[in-house]
Amino acid sequence: MIKPKTRLFMEGVLDAGAEIALGKNHVHFLGNVLRLRSGDKISLFNGDCGEWSATVENLSKRHGVACIGEQVRCPQPEPGPWLAFAPVKKTRTDFIVEKATELGVEKLIPIFTRFTATARVNCERLRAISIEAAEQCERLSVPEVSEPCSLMDLLADWPSGRKLFIGDEKGGGVSLAQALSGIEAVPEHGFLIGPEGGFADDELALVTARDFCQSVDLGPRILRAETAAIAALSVWNALTERSNRLSQH
Amino acid sequence: MIKPKTRLFMEGVLDAGAEIALGKNHVHFLGNVLRLRSGDKISLFNGDCGEWSATVENLSKRHGVACIGEQVRCPQPEPGPWLAFAPVKKTRTDFIVEKATELGVEKLIPIFTRFTATARVNCERLRAISIEAAEQCERLSVPEVSEPCSLMDLLADWPSGRKLFIGDEKGGGVSLAQALSGIEAVPEHGFLIGPEGGFADDELALVTARDFCQSVDLGPRILRAETAAIAALSVWNALTERSNRLSQH
Repeated sequence: MIKPKTRLFMEGVLDAGAEIALGKNHVHFLGNVLRLRSGDKISLFNGDCGEWSATVENLSKRHGVACIGEQVRCPQPEPGPWLAFAPVKKTRTDFIVEKATELGVEKLIPIFTRFTATARVNCERLRAISIEAAEQCERLSVPEVSEPCSLMDLLADWPSGRKLFIGDEKGGGVSLAQALSGIEAVPEHGFLIGPEGGFADDELALVTARDFCQSVDLGPRILRAETAAIAALSVWNALTERSNRLSQH
Repeated sequence: MIKPKTRLFMEGVLDAGAEIALGKNHVHFLGNVLRLRSGDKISLFNGDCGEWSATVENLSKRHGVACIGEQVRCPQPEPGPWLAFAPVKKTRTDFIVEKATELGVEKLIPIFTRFTATARVNCERLRAISIEAAEQCERLSVPEVSEPCSLMDLLADWPSGRKLFIGDEKGGGVSLAQALSGIEAVPEHGFLIGPEGGFADDELALVTARDFCQSVDLGPRILRAETAAIAALSVWNALTERSNRLSQH
């Protein structure tokens, strides 16, 4: 049975011989949830320093230290698509964040549109979920979770060199597979997934008028917002990975 | 705003002029949740009869009738992949069933493997989830939810003409995109997704020894079981849909 090693995302400088005092949540997780003891091995990682082996020491109910050993993975860029999404119900939004992290998203941007049913987004909660997912899925980096913004601000601030695919449930676009055929090896892309109620017609017109935007059709069935996000990212991974593999041969 | 019409899956014969007594759950859903009233329009559907408009009549706290009007969609085959999956925690299993239904799965088969952490599967619950998802996503059919079986029984009973792709987290396979390149227009396929602990080595050896089985690699990150299932189905849809579109031109 594959027993996953315990990986903790740890901000700051990771270096051989360093001793890092563990925070309250980590102490609780290692001691009470995983029932580790002093002397047990874990890994610490972040995007800047890569991944390091570490030994848990002086673990008590409230305190603990991670003593860093050797580097097990060098830092490396983990470029990925960006995902702008209208928040949905709590569990489903959590799911979007967890799955998008597993599927390699570099940046998550909650957006408010006319028909977004949720008025508040707890970004700290979403960050905690993305960290946990990154720990579990072997990423070195954790996606950035932006503060929520309006659809208008998203478009105004969007880098023009990054293509933005819009999941258009009205069937206005080509299939994502078609849109991704013939792309370059490491494309800079993003996805925009609307709320359950869809985009308003004027919102959709405003979005699709931008040069960097392209409507894509995600299939014949009506997908829930979180399914659309996960499906789009999965297809993106499969097709850009294939393109990367092909370009390496 | 897109206000989805209310679609109810209804077993039995649907025909113009028929009056169907609504069950307790439907009465509750229409009256208390959606707050419909007598005279309101809904749709009824099933895989054999297609989809029909209907009017709710005599709706009270405990009773109600659906009076069937005209057919709005003819029955049509909805062939799709089969998904054999090791059940995971409750919410995540629910998610697999809901998303697989949205993504067009024809049959769901819970399987027990050596490292499956769950000993029981409530198939009635999974069927209810798949019905709700089918109502929401515009399917005419509801996927069959099989009784759980062992991995050995799955292999023994698997139709040899249907290819079975195994999500191999040990990286033994080609990418799913590669495996699906050059496939026929409407392929008969299935997916086998293991538990969080992975397959035991001897299980994997037994599976991959079968002619109809092929290991596939679902990408560089470690995906949770439910993510692997959703990702595989999404990619399958995107690539077989493209193949279907291409074959029509």
